[in-house]
Amino acid sequence: MSAGPGIGHIGVFTSGGDSPGMNAAIRAVVRSAAYHGLRCSGIMGGYDGMIRDEVRPLGPRDVSNIIQRGGTILRSARSDGFRTLEGRSQATATLQRHGIDALVAIGGDGTFAGARALFQEHEIRIIGLPGTIDNDLAGTDRTIGFDTAVNTAVEAIDKLRDTAASHDRLFFVEVMGRDTGFIALASAIAAGAEYVMLPEVPQRIEELAAALARAEQSKSSSIVVVAEGDEEGGAAEVARKVKLIHPQYDMRVTVLGHLQRGGSPTVVDRVMASRMGVAAVDQLLQGARDAMVGEVCGQIVLTPFAEAIGHRKRIPDDLLRLMPVLAT
Amino acid sequence: MSAGPGIGHIGVFTSGGDSPGMNAAIRAVVRSAAYHGLRCSGIMGGYDGMIRDEVRPLGPRDVSNIIQRGGTILRSARSDGFRTLEGRSQATATLQRHGIDALVAIGGDGTFAGARALFQEHEIRIIGLPGTIDNDLAGTDRTIGFDTAVNTAVEAIDKLRDTAASHDRLFFVEVMGRDTGFIALASAIAAGAEYVMLPEVPQRIEELAAALARAEQSKSSSIVVVAEGDEEGGAAEVARKVKLIHPQYDMRVTVLGHLQRGGSPTVVDRVMASRMGVAAVDQLLQGARDAMVGEVCGQIVLTPFAEAIGHRKRIPDDLLRLMPVLAT
Amino acid sequence: MSAGPGIGHIGVFTSGGDSPGMNAAIRAVVRSAAYHGLRCSGIMGGYDGMIRDEVRPLGPRDVSNIIQRGGTILRSARSDGFRTLEGRSQATATLQRHGIDALVAIGGDGTFAGARALFQEHEIRIIGLPGTIDNDLAGTDRTIGFDTAVNTAVEAIDKLRDTAASHDRLFFVEVMGRDTGFIALASAIAAGAEYVMLPEVPQRIEELAAALARAEQSKSSSIVVVAEGDEEGGAAEVARKVKLIHPQYDMRVTVLGHLQRGGSPTVVDRVMASRMGVAAVDQLLQGARDAMVGEVCGQIVLTPFAEAIGHRKRIPDDLLRLMPVLAT
Amino acid sequence: MSAGPGIGHIGVFTSGGDSPGMNAAIRAVVRSAAYHGLRCSGIMGGYDGMIRDEVRPLGPRDVSNIIQRGGTILRSARSDGFRTLEGRSQATATLQRHGIDALVAIGGDGTFAGARALFQEHEIRIIGLPGTIDNDLAGTDRTIGFDTAVNTAVEAIDKLRDTAASHDRLFFVEVMGRDTGFIALASAIAAGAEYVMLPEVPQRIEELAAALARAEQSKSSSIVVVAEGDEEGGAAEVARKVKLIHPQYDMRVTVLGHLQRGGSPTVVDRVMASRMGVAAVDQLLQGARDAMVGEVCGQIVLTPFAEAIGHRKRIPDDLLRLMPVLAT
Repeated sequence: MSAGPGIGHIGVFTSGGDSPGMNAAIRAVVRSAAYHGLRCSGIMGGYDGMIRDEVRPLGPRDVSNIIQRGGTILRSARSDGFRTLEGRSQATATLQRHGIDALVAIGGDGTFAGARALFQEHEIRIIGLPGTIDNDLAGTDRTIGFDTAVNTAVEAIDKLRDTAASHDRLFFVEVMGRDTGFIALASAIAAGAEYVMLPEVPQRIEELAAALARAEQSKSSSIVVVAEGDEEGGAAEVARKVKLIHPQYDMRVTVLGHLQRGGSPTVVDRVMASRMGVAAVDQLLQGARDAMVGEVCGQIVLTPFAEAIGHRKRIPDDLLRLMPVLAT
Repeated sequence: MSAGPGIGHIGVFTSGGDSPGMNAAIRAVVRSAAYHGLRCSGIMGGYDGMIRDEVRPLGPRDVSNIIQRGGTILRSARSDGFRTLEGRSQATATLQRHGIDALVAIGGDGTFAGARALFQEHEIRIIGLPGTIDNDLAGTDRTIGFDTAVNTAVEAIDKLRDTAASHDRLFFVEVMGRDTGFIALASAIAAGAEYVMLPEVPQRIEELAAALARAEQSKSSSIVVVAEGDEEGGAAEVARKVKLIHPQYDMRVTVLGHLQRGGSPTVVDRVMASRMGVAAVDQLLQGARDAMVGEVCGQIVLTPFAEAIGHRKRIPDDLLRLMPVLAT
Repeated sequence: MSAGPGIGHIGVFTSGGDSPGMNAAIRAVVRSAAYHGLRCSGIMGGYDGMIRDEVRPLGPRDVSNIIQRGGTILRSARSDGFRTLEGRSQATATLQRHGIDALVAIGGDGTFAGARALFQEHEIRIIGLPGTIDNDLAGTDRTIGFDTAVNTAVEAIDKLRDTAASHDRLFFVEVMGRDTGFIALASAIAAGAEYVMLPEVPQRIEELAAALARAEQSKSSSIVVVAEGDEEGGAAEVARKVKLIHPQYDMRVTVLGHLQRGGSPTVVDRVMASRMGVAAVDQLLQGARDAMVGEVCGQIVLTPFAEAIGHRKRIPDDLLRLMPVLAT
Repeated sequence: MSAGPGIGHIGVFTSGGDSPGMNAAIRAVVRSAAYHGLRCSGIMGGYDGMIRDEVRPLGPRDVSNIIQRGGTILRSARSDGFRTLEGRSQATATLQRHGIDALVAIGGDGTFAGARALFQEHEIRIIGLPGTIDNDLAGTDRTIGFDTAVNTAVEAIDKLRDTAASHDRLFFVEVMGRDTGFIALASAIAAGAEYVMLPEVPQRIEELAAALARAEQSKSSSIVVVAEGDEEGGAAEVARKVKLIHPQYDMRVTVLGHLQRGGSPTVVDRVMASRMGVAAVDQLLQGARDAMVGEVCGQIVLTPFAEAIGHRKRIPDDLLRLMPVLAT
C-alpha cells in the first residue's frame, strides 16, 4: 500500500471525557502507522497539549500491554484555549514544528467540533474516532467505551440486588448519561430492573409509582434505574417523589458516578477500538478527512464531521418496549 | 395483542452445550408469555426431559433473580432417545399431556435439527433461539453466550500476560471452538495476542515461527491463541512443533476449557437474550414456526431452520486481516 | 461425637444488615447439623420471622450452590417487635412450637444484644457468628463480609483511578463505616490512596489540604478515602472544605454506598464463614451458649456476648502509620 | 528516625516465580526508602540482572499506579549463574559499583537460599519478603500472592460449577501447588467442592470414589479439586482412575495453570505486601539482615533465613477436617 497523499507522520490524541477502550484505539493507530511505515506521535492532554506542544513519538513498543487498561495513556482535558482562533493557530504551529501532517482524534461531539475548526481554518487532515461512554453519536452503532460502562453499571447493580433481595428493599440507581439514556436503558434491561427513567422519555412519577405497586405484589425487591439527566432530577429526587406516594417503602439511593468511566475495557470495546484505529489510518491514507470513522452493521463507515456533530442517535424504540414485558 | 393462532401454553427448554445468557432468554420467554396471558412451562434437561415428562409450570416469579446467572436453570443434556422416531413420539405425547401447544428451543445446530424433526413429524410449532458460545450459526450476528465466553477467555489471558511479561515467556492458550474460530479470533484481537490459529485458516507452523521470531526483536513476551479445533492439533501440539524450530523459547501451554461456558453473562448477552426471548413469543403468536430468531444489524430476523442448520457463519475477513497489523 | 446436651434441632437466622458470606455460614451450619444427625431449620427475616413463625426446614441440598452468593437466603431485617418482652415471648413460643432447642444467630452487635436477651429471659441456647462488613466486633480478627466489602471498594477505586489519572483529578471516595474506619483504612492502603479520614481519628482539613499540596508536586492524580461516619461529615462535606483552601483543584466525589454489601464473597470470607458455621454447631453440642464464635490468630475462640457487645475493636495503629509512608 | 547503620542505598528485586502483590511490595520498599531519605534502585530480572548489572534508580513516582497490577515490574527469572561462586562475586561487584549497601529480596525458598549465600560470602545485608503463591513458607501466616491465587482459582471453579450443574457433570480441577496443598485446600473449601486431593495427604482413589457415590445420591454435580503435585498424578490421572470405578460418570478435567499467577492482587495481598515492604526497610535500618519478614497473628515477625529455608509450613488439620462436614 502506498504511503497515501503525502502523509508521513500521524498525530493521535484523546479529548473530552475519557472512556474505556481509548488505549486500545491509540495502540491500533500507532501499530497501524508503523505497519504502513509512517511516523507516529502522541499529543498529551488533548487540544491543550497541542497548543502547549506536548508531543512525544510513539512506536509499537510504547503501546505494548495497554490494550487492557482503562483511561488514556495520552491523558485528556477540556481546552478553553482551543476555542479561540489564536489557540488553534498555536496548535497548528505545534503540528508544523513536528512535521505532523494528519491527525486521529479520539473523543466525542466537542472533540469533533474542534477537529472541524482545525480542518476548516488550517486544512489539517483529521479523522475522528467515537470515544465516549454515552453512545449518542450518530454514524456508529456503538461508541468506544459504552459496552464497558454498561457492564460496570450492571455489575454494580447485581451487587445491589443481593442486598436489596435480602432486605425487601427498593433501590434507585443513578447511572451516567446527562443528555441521553443509552446507558440507563441497557443497564435496566440487563440488570432486570423494574423501571427505567430516561432523559428522552417524558416520565410521570405516577406511572413509576403504579409500576412499583404492581411489582410489590409479586417481588421481594426492586431496582429502578435513573439516568443522571432524567428530567425528574436524578435518582435522589425521583426517590423523594416516590416516597411521597409510597411512604412505607424501604428505599435506598445509589449514584454510580465516575466508576463507570474506568475499568478494563470489554471485548466489544477492545475489538471495535482496534478495528476503528486501523481504519482511521487506512482512511487517512486513502485521502479521507474531516470525518468520523464508525461501525454500522459490522462495516466501517465514514460520516462527515458536519453530519456527526449535533445529530444525536435515538434510543431504539423496540428496546424501550421490552421493559414492561420483562418486568411482568 | 390477541393470543395468536390457538396458542395458550408455551413450553421452553435448553438443549446441547449450555451457554451464558440462557437463563436471561428463559426469563424473557416466561415473562413475555405471562404478559400475553399465556401459560408457560419449563421442560427440564432438554429433549430427554421431554421424553421423560419432566415438565414444571413457570411463572414470572420463578425466573426472578436469574438473569445474572450462568448455566441454565432448566438444565441441558444431549439426548440419544430423541434421535429415534419413537423418542420423538413420546416427547410429543408429553407435550399433549400438558397441553403445550408451542415451544421455544434454546440451543445450537443439533437442537434445531431436533426441533425441525418434531415440527415435520408432529406439527409442533417451535421457534429456536441461538444459544451457543461458538457463534457459528447463520442467521444472527451473534449467538447467546459468545460475548461472555470471549470476555472470560480474555480475562484469563490478561492474567497470563501478567506472568508472561514478568518472565519473558511465550504462552500458547487454547480456547474453545471445535469447528470454528470465532472465539479464538475475537480473543486474540482483544487480548493483544501475537498470532492466532483457527480451524478455518490453513496454518503453517513456519509462518507462526517466523512471526514469533520477528516479535522477539521488539517484545518481551508473546501470546499465541489456538482454537481447540485447529488443524495443527490444539495448543500443546502447536507448541511442540514451535519448540522444534525455536528450542530456546521458554514456553507454557494453557487450555482454558469449560470455564468459558460459565460465569455471569455480559450485558450484550443479557440484552440480546432478553430481546430474542420476547421476540420468540411474539413470533409464535404471529404464526411463525420452524424457524430461528436472530439479530442482524440490530433487527430481529427470522431464519427457517432448514436454512439455519448446516450453514456455518464465516469468519469475517477484515477481522482476520487486523491481526498482523495489530501485532506490528 | 454425641448429640450434646439435649440438642436435636438447630435454628439458624441472619439479622441486621446483610453481609457477603452469610450464605456460606448458613450452609456450614446446615451441613454440620446434618453431619451430626441433627435437624435444622431456617428462620426467615431475622427476629421478625421468629415472632411471626416464618420457619422452614433446611437440609444439605437446600444449601447447595449458595456458598458463592451475596446476600442471605434467609433474608434479614431489623425488628422493633423483638425489642419488647412480648415480642421475645412470641419468638420463644415459635421455637417451642417447632421443637428448636438451639440457635445460631448471624449478625452484629444488635443481633447479639437480642440473642442475649433471649437467653437470659428464656434460656434459649444461642451461639452468634460475626456477620457484618464493618469488622468492628471484638473477639474476632475479622468479621464475615469485611474482606469482600473492602475488595469491592478497592475494585471501584481502581476504576476511579483510571479516570482520575487521565484527567489530573482529585477524587473523594466515601466508603461504608458509620462508626468505624476499618473499611476506609484497608481500602485506602490497598487502593494506594493519598489520604484517609476515619471516625476514630480527629482529622484536620488543614492537614489533608497540606498533604494534597505535597502530593501535587509529584503526582498527577489523587484519591482520598473518607469513611461515611467521618466527623467532618462525609466525602461531599470534606471536598467542600478542601475546595475552600484549594479552589483550583478539579475534584469529584463518589459515594460507593450499598454495593459494598453485595457481591460474591471472597475466599477469606467463604472459608472463615464455613469454619465458623461448623464451629458454632460444635460449640452448641459441647454445651456453649450466650457467646460469639470468632477467629483469632487462626484459632476458633469463644467470647461471651456480654463481652462482645459494646466493645468495639480498635483500628490497628501500625496500619494507620503506613499511610504517610506509602503516600510518599 | 536515623538512617540506620550506614545504609544509604537500598536495592530491591523479585526472583523465582512471580506472584500477585509483588508490585505492591516493591512500591512499599521504594516509598519507604524515600520516606527515610534513602536512595533506592531496582534490579531487573532477579539474580541474573544483579550479575549482568541491570540496575535502575527508583523514586516514588516510578511506582505510582502499580499497586493494582499483577506480575512484577522488575521482572523475574531463575538464575543458573548465581548458583556459582563466581556469579555471586559478579553480583556483589554490581552492588558495589552502584553503592547499594542493602537489599530487599522478594521471592520464595530458592530466593532466600541465594540471599543467604550472598550474605555469608559477601556480608551483603539482605531482608527477604515471602512472595510466592504457594503459601508454604514457615515464618508467616500467609505469603504474598496466595490470597489472589486462591481467589482466581475459586472464580474459575464458580464458572465451572455453572456448567457442571447444568449438565449433571463431575469436574476434576487441577490447581497449582507442586509440593503443597494450601491452594487446593482453600480452593476446595471456598468453592464448595466435594473432595480435595493434596500432596500432603496419602489419598486413596477408593475413598474418593466412595465419596462421589454418596454425593450422587443428593447432588446434581460435583467438583473435585486436585493439587498439581498430588501423588496420584494430577487431575487427568485421578479422573482416569475414577472412570475405571464409575464408568458411567460424565466427567471433565480442567487444569487452571498459570492464570493463577496473574491478575490484580486482592486487598489481603496488597495490604500485607505494603506492610511487609515498609517493615523490610525499617528492619534494615534497625540492623536486621539474613532474615525474612513475615506476618504472624497480625504482627510483623522476623525469621532467620536459616530457619525459613527448608521448613515447610504444614496444612492446618482443622481446615482439612472441614471438608467431609461441608460436603455432607
